[in-house]
Amino acid sequence: MRFVSFTSLITGKCGYGLITTDGSGIVELGSRIVGATDLGQLVGQMRLEEARQFAKEPADHLLADVRYERLLPWPQKIFCIGVNYGGRSDEYADTSDAAYPSVFVRFPDSFTGHDQPLIRPPESLQLDYEGEIVAVIGKPGRRIPLSAARSHIAGLSLGNEGTIRDWVRHAKFNVTQGKNWDSTGAMGPSLVTLDEIGPFNDLQISTHINGELRQQDSPATMKYSIEYQVHYLSTFTQLRPGDVIFTGTPTGAGARFDPPIWLAQGDEIEVSVPELGTLRNTVIDEINDGDVYVSPEPQ
Amino acid sequence: MRFVSFTSLITGKCGYGLITTDGSGIVELGSRIVGATDLGQLVGQMRLEEARQFAKEPADHLLADVRYERLLPWPQKIFCIGVNYGGRSDEYADTSDAAYPSVFVRFPDSFTGHDQPLIRPPESLQLDYEGEIVAVIGKPGRRIPLSAARSHIAGLSLGNEGTIRDWVRHAKFNVTQGKNWDSTGAMGPSLVTLDEIGPFNDLQISTHINGELRQQDSPATMKYSIEYQVHYLSTFTQLRPGDVIFTGTPTGAGARFDPPIWLAQGDEIEVSVPELGTLRNTVIDEINDGDVYVSPEPQ
Repeated sequence: MRFVSFTSLITGKCGYGLITTDGSGIVELGSRIVGATDLGQLVGQMRLEEARQFAKEPADHLLADVRYERLLPWPQKIFCIGVNYGGRSDEYADTSDAAYPSVFVRFPDSFTGHDQPLIRPPESLQLDYEGEIVAVIGKPGRRIPLSAARSHIAGLSLGNEGTIRDWVRHAKFNVTQGKNWDSTGAMGPSLVTLDEIGPFNDLQISTHINGELRQQDSPATMKYSIEYQVHYLSTFTQLRPGDVIFTGTPTGAGARFDPPIWLAQGDEIEVSVPELGTLRNTVIDEINDGDVYVSPEPQ
Repeated sequence: MRFVSFTSLITGKCGYGLITTDGSGIVELGSRIVGATDLGQLVGQMRLEEARQFAKEPADHLLADVRYERLLPWPQKIFCIGVNYGGRSDEYADTSDAAYPSVFVRFPDSFTGHDQPLIRPPESLQLDYEGEIVAVIGKPGRRIPLSAARSHIAGLSLGNEGTIRDWVRHAKFNVTQGKNWDSTGAMGPSLVTLDEIGPFNDLQISTHINGELRQQDSPATMKYSIEYQVHYLSTFTQLRPGDVIFTGTPTGAGARFDPPIWLAQGDEIEVSVPELGTLRNTVIDEINDGDVYVSPEPQ
Protein backbone atom coordinates (compact mmCIF):
# COMPACT_ATOMS: atom_id res chain seq x y z
CA MET A 1 0.00 0.00 0.00
CA ARG A 2 1.05 3.57 -0.74
CA PHE A 3 -0.32 6.26 1.52
CA VAL A 4 -0.30 9.98 0.74
CA SER A 5 -1.32 13.21 2.45
CA PHE A 6 -2.82 15.83 0.17
CA THR A 7 -5.01 18.87 -0.35
CA SER A 8 -7.65 18.71 -3.06
CA LEU A 9 -7.12 21.49 -5.57
CA ILE A 10 -10.85 21.32 -6.36
CA THR A 11 -12.37 21.46 -2.87
CA GLY A 12 -9.45 22.89 -0.94
CA LYS A 13 -9.83 20.20 1.71
CA CYS A 14 -6.96 18.28 3.29
CA GLY A 15 -7.04 14.53 3.37
CA TYR A 16 -5.08 11.33 3.21
CA GLY A 17 -5.53 8.18 1.26
CA LEU A 18 -4.24 5.23 -0.72
CA ILE A 19 -2.84 5.40 -4.22
CA THR A 20 -4.99 3.17 -6.47
CA THR A 21 -3.38 0.05 -7.90
CA ASP A 22 -3.20 1.62 -11.38
CA GLY A 23 -1.44 4.64 -9.88
CA SER A 24 -3.80 7.23 -11.32
CA GLY A 25 -5.67 8.39 -8.28
CA ILE A 26 -6.32 8.39 -4.57
CA VAL A 27 -8.89 6.53 -2.49
CA GLU A 28 -9.67 8.92 0.34
CA LEU A 29 -9.47 7.28 3.76
CA GLY A 30 -10.47 10.02 6.19
CA SER A 31 -14.15 9.48 5.40
CA ARG A 32 -13.83 5.67 5.54
CA ILE A 33 -11.76 5.11 8.69
CA VAL A 34 -13.46 6.53 11.76
CA GLY A 35 -11.24 8.33 14.27
CA ALA A 36 -8.17 8.89 12.11
CA THR A 37 -8.38 12.26 10.43
CA ASP A 38 -4.83 12.42 9.08
CA LEU A 39 -2.12 9.94 8.11
CA GLY A 40 -0.20 10.66 11.30
CA GLN A 41 -3.18 9.47 13.32
CA LEU A 42 -3.64 6.36 11.17
CA VAL A 43 -0.01 5.36 11.70
CA GLY A 44 -0.08 6.45 15.33
CA GLN A 45 -3.08 4.26 16.02
CA MET A 46 -1.40 1.34 14.20
CA ARG A 47 -4.35 1.05 11.81
CA LEU A 48 -2.64 1.02 8.40
CA GLU A 49 -3.93 -2.48 7.66
CA GLU A 50 -7.54 -1.27 7.96
CA ALA A 51 -6.96 0.60 4.72
CA ARG A 52 -6.31 -2.54 2.69
CA GLN A 53 -10.02 -3.32 2.30
CA PHE A 54 -10.40 -0.04 0.37
CA ALA A 55 -7.45 -0.56 -1.97
CA LYS A 56 -9.60 -1.61 -4.92
CA GLU A 57 -12.21 1.14 -4.61
CA PRO A 58 -12.38 3.63 -7.47
CA ALA A 59 -10.32 6.78 -7.01
CA ASP A 60 -11.92 9.74 -5.28
CA HIS A 61 -9.26 12.14 -6.56
CA LEU A 62 -7.06 12.18 -9.64
CA LEU A 63 -3.41 12.74 -8.79
CA ALA A 64 -3.52 15.78 -11.05
CA ASP A 65 -6.18 17.30 -8.82
CA VAL A 66 -4.25 17.28 -5.54
CA ARG A 67 -1.30 19.02 -3.95
CA TYR A 68 0.87 16.67 -1.93
CA GLU A 69 1.35 17.69 1.68
CA ARG A 70 4.16 16.74 4.06
CA LEU A 71 3.66 12.98 4.37
CA LEU A 72 3.07 13.07 8.13
CA PRO A 73 1.80 16.37 9.52
CA TRP A 74 3.60 16.52 12.85
CA PRO A 75 5.68 13.51 13.92
CA GLN A 76 6.66 13.60 17.59
CA LYS A 77 10.25 12.54 16.90
CA ILE A 78 12.24 12.98 13.71
CA PHE A 79 15.75 11.54 13.98
CA CYS A 80 18.40 12.12 11.34
CA ILE A 81 21.48 9.93 10.97
CA GLY A 82 24.64 11.69 9.79
CA VAL A 83 27.71 10.41 7.93
CA ASN A 84 26.54 6.87 7.19
CA TYR A 85 26.78 5.70 3.57
CA GLY A 86 30.03 4.39 2.13
CA GLY A 87 32.65 7.05 1.73
CA ARG A 88 30.97 9.73 3.81
CA SER A 89 33.39 9.38 6.72
CA ASP A 90 36.10 10.19 4.21
CA GLU A 91 34.18 13.30 3.09
CA TYR A 92 34.26 14.49 6.69
CA ALA A 93 37.86 13.41 7.25
CA ASP A 94 36.45 11.61 10.27
CA THR A 95 39.36 9.97 12.00
CA SER A 96 37.58 9.78 15.34
CA ASP A 97 36.75 6.07 15.02
CA ALA A 98 33.28 6.85 16.31
CA ALA A 99 31.61 3.54 17.01
CA TYR A 100 28.05 4.86 17.03
CA PRO A 101 26.00 6.92 14.59
CA SER A 102 25.79 10.69 14.64
CA VAL A 103 22.18 11.62 15.48
CA PHE A 104 20.46 14.96 15.18
CA VAL A 105 16.85 16.12 15.24
CA ARG A 106 14.71 18.04 12.79
CA PHE A 107 11.37 19.66 13.44
CA PRO A 108 8.47 18.72 11.15
CA ASP A 109 8.06 22.19 9.68
CA SER A 110 11.58 22.05 8.28
CA PHE A 111 10.03 19.70 5.69
CA THR A 112 7.43 20.35 3.04
CA GLY A 113 5.55 17.96 0.73
CA HIS A 114 6.35 16.41 -2.64
CA ASP A 115 6.15 18.93 -5.50
CA GLN A 116 5.97 21.88 -3.11
CA PRO A 117 8.66 24.58 -3.22
CA LEU A 118 11.81 24.37 -1.12
CA ILE A 119 12.43 27.76 0.45
CA ARG A 120 15.86 29.34 0.09
CA PRO A 121 16.04 32.02 2.80
CA PRO A 122 17.74 35.35 2.19
CA GLU A 123 20.15 34.81 5.11
CA SER A 124 22.27 32.25 3.23
CA LEU A 125 23.36 31.27 -0.25
CA GLN A 126 24.22 27.74 0.86
CA LEU A 127 21.03 25.70 0.46
CA ASP A 128 22.09 22.10 -0.17
CA TYR A 129 20.30 18.80 -0.85
CA GLU A 130 20.63 15.40 0.84
CA GLY A 131 18.60 12.58 -0.69
CA GLU A 132 17.57 9.97 1.87
CA ILE A 133 15.50 6.90 2.57
CA VAL A 134 13.06 7.61 5.39
CA ALA A 135 11.77 4.95 7.81
CA VAL A 136 8.43 5.44 9.56
CA ILE A 137 7.98 3.57 12.83
CA GLY A 138 4.85 1.40 12.97
CA LYS A 139 5.05 -0.31 16.34
CA PRO A 140 6.17 1.12 19.69
CA GLY A 141 9.27 -0.11 21.41
CA ARG A 142 12.16 0.56 23.72
CA ARG A 143 15.41 -1.42 23.58
CA ILE A 144 14.28 -3.17 20.41
CA PRO A 145 16.60 -6.09 19.55
CA LEU A 146 18.35 -5.80 16.21
CA SER A 147 16.59 -8.95 15.03
CA ALA A 148 13.16 -7.38 15.65
CA ALA A 149 13.94 -3.93 14.26
CA ARG A 150 12.39 -4.38 10.81
CA SER A 151 9.08 -5.44 12.40
CA HIS A 152 8.87 -2.02 14.10
CA ILE A 153 8.94 -0.17 10.76
CA ALA A 154 5.57 0.54 9.11
CA GLY A 155 7.04 1.56 5.79
CA LEU A 156 9.54 3.68 3.93
CA SER A 157 9.41 6.99 2.15
CA LEU A 158 11.86 9.43 0.60
CA GLY A 159 13.38 12.56 2.05
CA ASN A 160 15.39 15.53 0.99
CA GLU A 161 17.20 16.48 4.16
CA GLY A 162 17.84 19.99 2.81
CA THR A 163 20.48 21.91 4.70
CA ILE A 164 21.68 25.49 5.09
CA ARG A 165 25.31 24.51 5.04
CA ASP A 166 27.00 27.56 6.60
CA TRP A 167 24.60 27.48 9.57
CA VAL A 168 25.59 23.84 10.27
CA ARG A 169 28.94 25.25 11.36
CA HIS A 170 27.65 28.13 13.49
CA ALA A 171 28.80 26.41 16.66
CA LYS A 172 31.45 23.88 17.58
CA PHE A 173 28.89 21.24 18.58
CA ASN A 174 25.61 20.26 16.94
CA VAL A 175 24.10 21.02 13.56
CA THR A 176 20.56 21.93 14.65
CA GLN A 177 20.42 25.43 13.20
CA GLY A 178 21.60 24.41 9.74
CA LYS A 179 19.11 21.56 9.59
CA ASN A 180 15.92 23.26 10.70
CA TRP A 181 15.18 26.17 8.39
CA ASP A 182 11.47 26.18 7.62
CA SER A 183 10.60 24.24 4.43
CA THR A 184 14.19 23.60 3.39
CA GLY A 185 13.58 19.85 3.18
CA ALA A 186 10.84 17.52 1.98
CA MET A 187 9.27 14.19 2.87
CA GLY A 188 7.19 12.04 0.49
CA PRO A 189 5.63 11.43 -1.94
CA SER A 190 4.14 8.35 -0.28
CA LEU A 191 4.53 5.94 2.60
CA VAL A 192 5.15 2.50 1.07
CA THR A 193 4.38 -0.38 3.41
CA LEU A 194 7.09 -2.97 3.95
CA ASP A 195 5.22 -5.80 2.23
CA GLU A 196 6.15 -4.05 -1.04
CA ILE A 197 9.82 -3.76 -0.12
CA GLY A 198 12.48 -6.46 -0.06
CA PRO A 199 15.72 -6.44 1.91
CA PHE A 200 16.79 -2.83 2.48
CA ASN A 201 20.24 -3.62 1.12
CA ASP A 202 18.67 -4.24 -2.31
CA LEU A 203 17.36 -0.66 -2.56
CA GLN A 204 19.08 1.83 -4.86
CA ILE A 205 18.81 5.55 -4.10
CA SER A 206 19.70 8.38 -6.46
CA THR A 207 19.49 12.17 -6.38
CA HIS A 208 19.32 14.25 -9.54
CA ILE A 209 19.66 18.04 -9.74
CA ASN A 210 18.10 19.46 -12.91
CA GLY A 211 18.38 15.96 -14.35
CA GLU A 212 22.07 15.51 -13.49
CA LEU A 213 22.95 12.54 -11.29
CA ARG A 214 24.62 13.73 -8.08
CA GLN A 215 24.07 10.96 -5.53
CA GLN A 216 23.75 7.21 -6.06
CA ASP A 217 24.20 4.46 -3.51
CA SER A 218 22.52 1.61 -1.69
CA PRO A 219 21.85 0.97 2.00
CA ALA A 220 24.18 -2.01 1.53
CA THR A 221 27.10 0.44 2.02
CA MET A 222 25.69 1.97 5.20
CA LYS A 223 27.95 1.89 8.23
CA TYR A 224 24.81 1.72 10.38
CA SER A 225 21.97 -0.25 8.77
CA ILE A 226 18.38 0.96 8.99
CA GLU A 227 17.63 -1.93 11.34
CA TYR A 228 20.59 -0.97 13.53
CA GLN A 229 19.33 2.62 13.68
CA VAL A 230 15.98 1.43 15.09
CA HIS A 231 17.81 -0.76 17.59
CA TYR A 232 20.23 1.99 18.65
CA LEU A 233 17.74 4.87 18.93
CA SER A 234 15.30 2.72 20.91
CA THR A 235 17.98 2.06 23.49
CA PHE A 236 17.64 5.56 24.92
CA THR A 237 14.18 6.71 23.86
CA GLN A 238 10.77 5.19 23.35
CA LEU A 239 9.93 4.86 19.65
CA ARG A 240 6.25 5.28 18.82
CA PRO A 241 4.21 4.70 15.67
CA GLY A 242 4.62 7.73 13.43
CA ASP A 243 8.13 8.57 14.56
CA VAL A 244 10.50 9.08 11.65
CA ILE A 245 14.13 8.27 10.90
CA PHE A 246 16.05 9.98 8.09
CA THR A 247 18.57 7.22 7.55
CA GLY A 248 21.51 9.11 6.06
CA THR A 249 22.56 10.50 2.69
CA PRO A 250 25.06 9.17 0.12
CA THR A 251 28.16 11.09 -0.91
CA GLY A 252 27.70 13.84 -3.47
CA ALA A 253 25.87 16.71 -1.77
CA GLY A 254 26.64 20.13 -3.26
CA ALA A 255 28.99 21.02 -0.41
CA ARG A 256 31.36 18.25 -1.53
CA PHE A 257 32.15 19.75 -4.92
CA ASP A 258 35.14 22.04 -5.34
CA PRO A 259 33.98 24.75 -5.49
CA PRO A 260 30.69 23.84 -3.78
CA ILE A 261 27.55 23.92 -5.92
CA TRP A 262 24.63 25.42 -3.99
CA LEU A 263 20.99 25.24 -4.97
CA ALA A 264 19.43 28.33 -6.51
CA GLN A 265 15.97 29.51 -7.49
CA GLY A 266 14.44 27.18 -10.07
CA ASP A 267 16.68 24.19 -9.37
CA GLU A 268 14.83 20.89 -9.38
CA ILE A 269 15.83 18.15 -6.91
CA GLU A 270 14.66 14.59 -7.48
CA VAL A 271 15.27 11.83 -4.94
CA SER A 272 14.39 8.36 -6.25
CA VAL A 273 14.23 4.76 -5.13
CA PRO A 274 12.41 2.51 -7.65
CA GLU A 275 10.24 0.90 -4.96
CA LEU A 276 9.42 4.30 -3.39
CA GLY A 277 8.94 6.56 -6.41
CA THR A 278 10.42 10.03 -6.80
CA LEU A 279 10.34 12.98 -4.43
CA ARG A 280 10.60 16.15 -6.50
CA ASN A 281 10.90 19.76 -5.35
CA THR A 282 11.90 23.03 -6.92
CA VAL A 283 13.73 25.84 -5.12
CA ILE A 284 12.20 29.27 -4.74
CA ASP A 285 13.70 32.30 -3.08
CA GLU A 286 11.82 33.50 -0.04
CA ILE A 287 9.74 36.60 -0.65
CA ASN A 288 10.54 39.02 2.09
CA ASP A 289 7.67 41.46 1.70
CA GLY A 290 10.00 44.39 1.60
CA ASP A 291 11.68 43.56 4.89
CA VAL A 292 15.39 43.05 4.72
CA TYR A 293 16.22 39.86 6.57
CA VAL A 294 19.66 39.72 8.06
CA SER A 295 21.36 37.06 10.10
CA PRO A 296 21.66 37.80 13.80
CA GLU A 297 24.71 39.75 14.81
CA PRO A 298 27.27 37.41 16.32
CA GLN A 299 27.75 37.90 20.06
CA MET B 1 0.67 33.78 38.01
CA ARG B 2 2.14 30.34 38.61
CA PHE B 3 0.78 27.51 36.53
CA VAL B 4 1.27 23.82 37.27
CA SER B 5 0.37 20.48 35.68
CA PHE B 6 -0.55 17.73 38.11
CA THR B 7 -2.35 14.49 38.88
CA SER B 8 -4.63 14.40 41.92
CA LEU B 9 -3.51 11.70 44.32
CA ILE B 10 -7.10 11.51 45.55
CA THR B 11 -9.05 11.20 42.30
CA GLY B 12 -6.22 10.05 40.01
CA LYS B 13 -7.21 12.68 37.45
CA CYS B 14 -4.78 14.86 35.51
CA GLY B 15 -5.25 18.58 35.47
CA TYR B 16 -3.62 21.96 35.41
CA GLY B 17 -4.13 25.07 37.40
CA LEU B 18 -2.92 28.14 39.23
CA ILE B 19 -1.07 28.14 42.53
CA THR B 20 -3.13 30.15 45.03
CA THR B 21 -1.65 33.42 46.27
CA ASP B 22 -0.90 31.91 49.70
CA GLY B 23 0.97 29.05 47.95
CA SER B 24 -0.95 26.26 49.68
CA GLY B 25 -3.07 24.92 46.89
CA ILE B 26 -4.16 24.83 43.27
CA VAL B 27 -7.14 26.40 41.56
CA GLU B 28 -8.03 23.95 38.85
CA LEU B 29 -8.44 25.57 35.44
CA GLY B 30 -9.44 22.71 33.13
CA SER B 31 -13.03 22.89 34.37
CA ARG B 32 -13.11 26.71 34.21
CA ILE B 33 -11.51 27.45 30.84
CA VAL B 34 -13.41 25.83 27.99
CA GLY B 35 -11.37 24.25 25.22
CA ALA B 36 -8.02 24.03 26.98
CA THR B 37 -7.68 20.66 28.66
CA ASP B 38 -3.99 20.89 29.55
CA LEU B 39 -1.44 23.63 30.19
CA GLY B 40 0.13 23.08 26.77
CA GLN B 41 -3.18 23.93 25.14
CA LEU B 42 -3.67 27.00 27.35
CA VAL B 43 -0.25 28.37 26.39
CA GLY B 44 -0.66 27.25 22.78
CA GLN B 45 -3.94 29.14 22.49
CA MET B 46 -2.34 32.20 24.10
CA ARG B 47 -4.98 32.22 26.84
CA LEU B 48 -2.87 32.44 30.01
CA GLU B 49 -4.43 35.79 30.93
CA GLU B 50 -7.91 34.23 31.08
CA ALA B 51 -6.74 32.43 34.21
CA ARG B 52 -6.15 35.65 36.15
CA GLN B 53 -9.85 36.05 37.02
CA PHE B 54 -9.66 32.77 38.96
CA ALA B 55 -6.50 33.59 40.92
CA LYS B 56 -8.37 34.42 44.12
CA GLU B 57 -10.70 31.44 44.12
CA PRO B 58 -10.27 28.95 46.95
CA ALA B 59 -7.98 26.03 46.23
CA ASP B 60 -9.47 22.90 44.68
CA HIS B 61 -6.45 20.79 45.62
CA LEU B 62 -3.89 21.00 48.38
CA LEU B 63 -0.33 20.81 47.11
CA ALA B 64 0.14 17.78 49.36
CA ASP B 65 -2.61 16.00 47.44
CA VAL B 66 -1.11 16.18 43.95
CA ARG B 67 1.78 14.74 42.00
CA TYR B 68 3.43 17.30 39.73
CA GLU B 69 3.55 16.29 36.07
CA ARG B 70 5.93 17.52 33.38
CA LEU B 71 5.02 21.20 33.16
CA LEU B 72 3.98 21.03 29.49
CA PRO B 73 2.88 17.61 28.25
CA TRP B 74 4.27 17.61 24.74
CA PRO B 75 5.89 20.80 23.42
CA GLN B 76 6.42 20.79 19.65
CA LYS B 77 9.94 22.22 19.90
CA ILE B 78 12.35 22.00 22.83
CA PHE B 79 15.64 23.78 22.14
CA CYS B 80 18.65 23.49 24.42
CA ILE B 81 21.52 25.96 24.43
CA GLY B 82 24.97 24.56 25.18
CA VAL B 83 28.09 26.14 26.65
CA ASN B 84 26.67 29.54 27.55
CA TYR B 85 27.26 30.75 31.12
CA GLY B 86 30.50 32.40 32.15
CA GLY B 87 33.42 30.02 32.22
CA ARG B 88 31.78 27.16 30.35
CA SER B 89 33.75 27.72 27.16
CA ASP B 90 36.83 27.20 29.32
CA GLU B 91 35.37 23.93 30.64
CA TYR B 92 35.13 22.73 27.05
CA ALA B 93 38.53 24.17 26.08
CA ASP B 94 36.56 25.80 23.28
CA THR B 95 39.05 27.72 21.22
CA SER B 96 36.85 27.70 18.14
CA ASP B 97 35.71 31.31 18.58
CA ALA B 98 32.20 30.17 17.70
CA ALA B 99 30.13 33.30 17.22
CA TYR B 100 26.75 31.63 17.62
CA PRO B 101 25.24 29.40 20.28
CA SER B 102 25.38 25.62 20.25
CA VAL B 103 21.82 24.34 19.84
CA PHE B 104 20.49 20.85 20.33
CA VAL B 105 17.04 19.32 20.71
CA ARG B 106 15.41 17.21 23.40
CA PHE B 107 12.19 15.28 23.16
CA PRO B 108 9.52 15.92 25.80
CA ASP B 109 9.65 12.44 27.28
CA SER B 110 13.28 12.93 28.24
CA PHE B 111 11.84 15.14 31.02
CA THR B 112 9.67 14.26 33.96
CA GLY B 113 7.86 16.46 36.49
CA HIS B 114 8.90 18.09 39.75
CA ASP B 115 9.32 15.60 42.59
CA GLN B 116 9.14 12.61 40.24
CA PRO B 117 12.08 10.21 40.00
CA LEU B 118 14.89 10.72 37.53
CA ILE B 119 15.66 7.40 35.88
CA ARG B 120 19.24 6.16 35.79
CA PRO B 121 19.36 3.50 33.06
CA PRO B 122 21.46 0.36 33.45
CA GLU B 123 23.39 1.12 30.25
CA SER B 124 25.46 3.89 31.86
CA LEU B 125 26.89 4.99 35.19
CA GLN B 126 27.24 8.59 34.01
CA LEU B 127 23.94 10.30 34.81
CA ASP B 128 24.72 13.99 35.33
CA TYR B 129 22.71 17.11 36.23
CA GLU B 130 22.49 20.50 34.54
CA GLY B 131 20.38 23.12 36.32
CA GLU B 132 18.79 25.60 33.93
CA ILE B 133 16.35 28.45 33.51
CA VAL B 134 13.66 27.47 31.01
CA ALA B 135 11.83 29.97 28.79
CA VAL B 136 8.35 29.15 27.46
CA ILE B 137 7.31 30.93 24.28
CA GLY B 138 4.00 32.78 24.53
CA LYS B 139 3.60 34.50 21.17
CA PRO B 140 4.43 33.16 17.70
CA GLY B 141 7.16 34.69 15.64
CA ARG B 142 9.81 34.29 12.99
CA ARG B 143 12.83 36.58 12.73
CA ILE B 144 11.94 38.22 16.04
CA PRO B 145 14.04 41.36 16.62
CA LEU B 146 16.22 41.27 19.71
CA SER B 147 14.31 44.24 21.12
CA ALA B 148 10.99 42.33 20.92
CA ALA B 149 12.29 38.99 22.17
CA ARG B 150 11.12 39.29 25.77
CA SER B 151 7.56 40.02 24.63
CA HIS B 152 7.47 36.58 22.95
CA ILE B 153 8.15 34.77 26.23
CA ALA B 154 5.10 33.75 28.30
CA GLY B 155 7.06 32.90 31.39
CA LEU B 156 9.97 31.05 32.92
CA SER B 157 10.40 27.76 34.67
CA LEU B 158 13.24 25.57 35.89
CA GLY B 159 14.88 22.61 34.26
CA ASN B 160 17.29 19.85 35.04
CA GLU B 161 18.78 19.06 31.67
CA GLY B 162 19.94 15.66 32.90
CA THR B 163 22.50 13.99 30.70
CA ILE B 164 23.98 10.54 30.14
CA ARG B 165 27.48 11.86 29.74
CA ASP B 166 29.27 9.01 27.97
CA TRP B 167 26.51 8.83 25.33
CA VAL B 168 27.04 12.53 24.53
CA ARG B 169 30.34 11.46 23.03
CA HIS B 170 29.09 8.47 21.04
CA ALA B 171 29.65 10.34 17.79
CA LYS B 172 31.87 13.15 16.62
CA PHE B 173 29.02 15.57 15.91
CA ASN B 174 25.88 16.14 17.95
CA VAL B 175 24.90 15.21 21.47
CA THR B 176 21.35 13.93 20.82
CA GLN B 177 21.72 10.45 22.25
CA GLY B 178 23.23 11.58 25.55
CA LYS B 179 20.50 14.17 26.02
CA ASN B 180 17.39 12.16 25.30
CA TRP B 181 17.22 9.20 27.66
CA ASP B 182 13.66 8.83 28.88
CA SER B 183 13.00 10.69 32.17
CA THR B 184 16.62 11.69 32.76
CA GLY B 185 15.67 15.37 33.06
CA ALA B 186 12.88 17.42 34.61
CA MET B 187 10.88 20.57 33.95
CA GLY B 188 8.92 22.53 36.56
CA PRO B 189 7.62 22.99 39.18
CA SER B 190 5.63 25.89 37.74
CA LEU B 191 5.41 28.32 34.85
CA VAL B 192 5.86 31.81 36.31
CA THR B 193 4.53 34.59 34.10
CA LEU B 194 6.89 37.43 33.23
CA ASP B 195 4.96 40.07 35.19
CA GLU B 196 6.47 38.44 38.32
CA ILE B 197 10.02 38.51 36.94
CA GLY B 198 12.38 41.47 36.57
CA PRO B 199 15.32 41.75 34.21
CA PHE B 200 16.66 38.26 33.48
CA ASN B 201 20.16 39.40 34.42
CA ASP B 202 18.98 39.87 38.02
CA LEU B 203 18.07 36.19 38.40
CA GLN B 204 20.29 33.89 40.46
CA ILE B 205 20.31 30.17 39.72
CA SER B 206 21.76 27.45 41.92
CA THR B 207 21.92 23.66 41.87
CA HIS B 208 22.34 21.59 45.01
CA ILE B 209 23.10 17.86 45.15
CA ASN B 210 22.10 16.30 48.47
CA GLY B 211 22.19 19.82 49.88
CA GLU B 212 25.70 20.64 48.59
CA LEU B 213 26.01 23.67 46.30
CA ARG B 214 27.38 22.63 42.90
CA GLN B 215 26.22 25.30 40.44
CA GLN B 216 25.62 29.02 41.04
CA ASP B 217 25.46 31.77 38.48
CA SER B 218 23.29 34.45 36.89
CA PRO B 219 22.11 34.98 33.31
CA ALA B 220 24.18 38.19 33.52
CA THR B 221 27.23 36.04 32.66
CA MET B 222 25.60 34.34 29.66
CA LYS B 223 27.46 34.63 26.39
CA TYR B 224 24.06 34.49 24.64
CA SER B 225 21.27 36.16 26.61
CA ILE B 226 17.81 34.60 26.82
CA GLU B 227 16.49 37.39 24.59
CA TYR B 228 19.23 36.71 22.04
CA GLN B 229 18.34 33.02 22.04
CA VAL B 230 14.73 33.86 21.07
CA HIS B 231 16.02 36.21 18.37
CA TYR B 232 18.54 33.71 16.99
CA LEU B 233 16.34 30.60 17.02
CA SER B 234 13.47 32.46 15.37
CA THR B 235 15.73 33.39 12.48
CA PHE B 236 15.56 29.86 11.08
CA THR B 237 12.39 28.38 12.56
CA GLN B 238 8.93 29.55 13.50
CA LEU B 239 8.52 29.81 17.27
CA ARG B 240 5.04 29.03 18.53
CA PRO B 241 3.36 29.42 21.93
CA GLY B 242 4.35 26.47 24.08
CA ASP B 243 7.76 25.97 22.50
CA VAL B 244 10.50 25.72 25.11
CA ILE B 245 14.10 26.89 25.42
CA PHE B 246 16.52 25.39 27.96
CA THR B 247 18.78 28.40 28.20
CA GLY B 248 22.08 26.82 29.29
CA THR B 249 23.66 25.57 32.49
CA PRO B 250 26.32 27.15 34.74
CA THR B 251 29.69 25.55 35.38
CA GLY B 252 29.82 22.79 37.95
CA ALA B 253 28.09 19.74 36.47
CA GLY B 254 29.38 16.44 37.84
CA ALA B 255 31.44 15.76 34.71
CA ARG B 256 33.65 18.76 35.54
CA PHE B 257 35.00 17.35 38.80
CA ASP B 258 38.24 15.37 38.84
CA PRO B 259 37.37 12.58 39.11
CA PRO B 260 33.81 13.14 37.84
CA ILE B 261 30.99 12.76 40.35
CA TRP B 262 28.02 10.97 38.79
CA LEU B 263 24.53 10.79 40.21
CA ALA B 264 23.48 7.56 41.91
CA GLN B 265 20.31 6.05 43.30
CA GLY B 266 18.88 8.24 46.05
CA ASP B 267 20.72 11.43 45.12
CA GLU B 268 18.57 14.54 45.37
CA ILE B 269 18.96 17.33 42.82
CA GLU B 270 17.53 20.77 43.54
CA VAL B 271 17.55 23.57 40.97
CA SER B 272 16.49 26.93 42.38
CA VAL B 273 15.84 30.50 41.32
CA PRO B 274 14.12 32.57 44.06
CA GLU B 275 11.49 33.94 41.66
CA LEU B 276 10.83 30.46 40.20
CA GLY B 277 10.96 28.18 43.23
CA THR B 278 12.80 24.88 43.42
CA LEU B 279 12.72 21.93 41.07
CA ARG B 280 13.55 18.81 43.08
CA ASN B 281 14.07 15.25 41.86
CA THR B 282 15.58 12.09 43.28
CA VAL B 283 17.43 9.47 41.25
CA ILE B 284 16.22 5.91 41.04
CA ASP B 285 17.78 3.03 39.19
CA GLU B 286 15.68 1.63 36.40
CA ILE B 287 14.03 -1.66 37.25
CA ASN B 288 14.72 -4.04 34.45
CA ASP B 289 12.22 -6.77 35.23
CA GLY B 290 14.88 -9.43 35.07
CA ASP B 291 16.03 -8.47 31.58
CA VAL B 292 19.66 -7.52 31.29
CA TYR B 293 19.87 -4.30 29.33
CA VAL B 294 23.06 -3.81 27.38
CA SER B 295 24.19 -1.01 25.16
CA PRO B 296 24.08 -1.76 21.44
CA GLU B 297 27.16 -3.41 20.04
CA PRO B 298 29.24 -0.82 18.22
CA GLN B 299 29.28 -1.32 14.46
